[in-house]
Amino acid sequence: MPCLVMKFGGTSVADLARIRNVAQTVKRAHDDGADIAVIVSAMSGVTNQLIDYVSDIAPLADLREYDTIVSSGEQVTSGLLAIALQNLGVPARSWLGWQIPVVTDDAHGSARIQRIDVDEIRRRFEEERQVAVLAGFQGLEKGRQRITTLGRGGSDTSAVALASALEAERCDIYTDVEGVYTSDPRIVPRARKLDRITYEEMLEMASQGAKVLQTRSVEMAMKHRVRVQVLSSFEDKPGTLVVDEDEIVEQALVSGVTYSRDEAKITLQSVPDRPGVAAAIFGPLADAAVNVDMIVQNISAENGHTDMTFTVGNADLQRTISVLEKNREQLAYRELKADPNVVKVSVIGVGMRSHAGVAQRMFQALAEKGINIQVISTSEIKVSVLIAAEYAELALRSLHTAYGLDSA
Amino acid sequence: MPCLVMKFGGTSVADLARIRNVAQTVKRAHDDGADIAVIVSAMSGVTNQLIDYVSDIAPLADLREYDTIVSSGEQVTSGLLAIALQNLGVPARSWLGWQIPVVTDDAHGSARIQRIDVDEIRRRFEEERQVAVLAGFQGLEKGRQRITTLGRGGSDTSAVALASALEAERCDIYTDVEGVYTSDPRIVPRARKLDRITYEEMLEMASQGAKVLQTRSVEMAMKHRVRVQVLSSFEDKPGTLVVDEDEIVEQALVSGVTYSRDEAKITLQSVPDRPGVAAAIFGPLADAAVNVDMIVQNISAENGHTDMTFTVGNADLQRTISVLEKNREQLAYRELKADPNVVKVSVIGVGMRSHAGVAQRMFQALAEKGINIQVISTSEIKVSVLIAAEYAELALRSLHTAYGLDSA
Repeated sequence: MPCLVMKFGGTSVADLARIRNVAQTVKRAHDDGADIAVIVSAMSGVTNQLIDYVSDIAPLADLREYDTIVSSGEQVTSGLLAIALQNLGVPARSWLGWQIPVVTDDAHGSARIQRIDVDEIRRRFEEERQVAVLAGFQGLEKGRQRITTLGRGGSDTSAVALASALEAERCDIYTDVEGVYTSDPRIVPRARKLDRITYEEMLEMASQGAKVLQTRSVEMAMKHRVRVQVLSSFEDKPGTLVVDEDEIVEQALVSGVTYSRDEAKITLQSVPDRPGVAAAIFGPLADAAVNVDMIVQNISAENGHTDMTFTVGNADLQRTISVLEKNREQLAYRELKADPNVVKVSVIGVGMRSHAGVAQRMFQALAEKGINIQVISTSEIKVSVLIAAEYAELALRSLHTAYGLDSA
Repeated sequence: MPCLVMKFGGTSVADLARIRNVAQTVKRAHDDGADIAVIVSAMSGVTNQLIDYVSDIAPLADLREYDTIVSSGEQVTSGLLAIALQNLGVPARSWLGWQIPVVTDDAHGSARIQRIDVDEIRRRFEEERQVAVLAGFQGLEKGRQRITTLGRGGSDTSAVALASALEAERCDIYTDVEGVYTSDPRIVPRARKLDRITYEEMLEMASQGAKVLQTRSVEMAMKHRVRVQVLSSFEDKPGTLVVDEDEIVEQALVSGVTYSRDEAKITLQSVPDRPGVAAAIFGPLADAAVNVDMIVQNISAENGHTDMTFTVGNADLQRTISVLEKNREQLAYRELKADPNVVKVSVIGVGMRSHAGVAQRMFQALAEKGINIQVISTSEIKVSVLIAAEYAELALRSLHTAYGLDSA
């Protein structure tokens, strides 16, 4: 019997009417003869409410308690969907992370799945064609028997991990958009839905700000070669298939243009230009769990000093500043400048590997619109630039056109 | 080290400010040197919201899923209180029913506790003086590893069962009233808080409509001789102690006057007066899980026929009528009359055992106010009457005065 994993995000289970719709969608797949495992998120808004409770009650909460609290949203949805399915005559039961169990490490708040024991779920597939409805986002720290959660968007990872454990034909991620787009349709009206995208591109797009899939879930899908489809839970049509590169016949130069507003730029002016200065700056930041993204060190300009510019997530900005100020004497910079009004724009495509001039086309398109580039970083299949936030929309639309991505 | 169990109901943990207050109350007891286990309910309104979800999604829901869903409210509160305690420097952790475990039978929706494994909680008392914060109302069906719940008000039972397992000095039930009153103060302004009450009286008061403690929790306290105190979480003064009869020096004739509006009266007119008729009526009702309370069979009046009157819970009224109508031919009654506009008023006191005339004083007090008694039922320490609902307040106040319960 083919096995299908279906994941429904928060907007797809936002209220009881939508949960009933999801039950209908699952029933159709079940009627078609597949063995079905469903992963559900919390009803939209619930997880944020729970996180607000925790941060209100204590700024630095015990993450084991945080996990106990925020995992409850998925618990409710899994039970409600199981009941809705039973009500349609489809055998179903809910499974919480600790019941299966979905065994994770002990990194509460952002745990990693170690294994999923699917024997009992498989047995119920065979004996009664029972649909397994799993609460997403949660697992069990086996040693201490405590609930863990996988970090924001973790239900995507739950779904891909389960699809891998069940050796499912496909993992369908139902969401509130029709698939993966060449850019954000709210900003770029001529953005197109992609029929297929490679794991590598999807991974870059997720890392560079496209919110359609959690980065870690794409990594896992790529590693275990899980076929993932992103599709709409509100419209009955195919979405975007995330696949191996060799499944894509004609590869475009660039598949997508993304942006991320969650960026802040830090410049340390006039840092002594000597070996070990980068380590002296970024070591304490790493210790403070600040994730540094783009880094630029200017050519030494004045008598053995240089400027160091880098970006961090907006949420880490205050922490970054206080770490740097605490180490000011040792770092010996003249001035610290922080700018949260920046946006990172990226163009992504595996076609870059075999074509030159991709970055050049980007710089030119931005120059034509008078947009100043502040920082550049590149990878094998991506070019990112940091620009002033006010140019975000203009840059996205210009690049979308420049790479020939506009719909007819 | 003395051990204290403290239970906080839904209004005591209604929002984050109140949860912080609860943490302060627990901290004071902890500072005084006791080992503390806390039981929490869901934030007020949460459980009802979850129950509404379930009944909206399917009228006859799988009770295993119901339990998975409605148990989540206590899960959230237990985590939040653990964090609030840690924030005050008090070592604490949350415990869910499945983690301890609180082992129950498989009667989902109204499960009974079979045992509580307190070894780990005790070890943490000894090693780090850690406060155990238990999610109330929930347990684990051990065989199938599924969450169970104990029925409405089940957190009281969780608390008493834990106090028994821990051999606690006392089980303090914090609520939104100052203790157990001689009658409902909202209706009887001269009602007084009782300093002490016997288990037997508390049990009758809980069964007869006083909402201060769940009936099953009182049964359990009586059976295991757990000293229970009911007190206010908003005011720092002693509440009502529920104790053995021999701990009460001067016993009043009547300790309380209660009422219950959750009553409906059914009369079957002209039923054949022959052996087995009661079984024929009440057998099918028991099969339909209808709980029949008061029963009166009139003296046979006309040629071998009699009238049968009884009361059921308001929520069961429609089900009762449909069961009786389905069996109409067999039961051969002439007419079925149903009246939901009734209230049951009870006077309760262990003093009745040794004094005559208690019921008579009740009948007289009601007669003086022109209140007609429709049904009477008595037990060793209680007299209940069913009267028209519109007389409820008048009856309560009159009886409160007649038995000398009014405050000075």
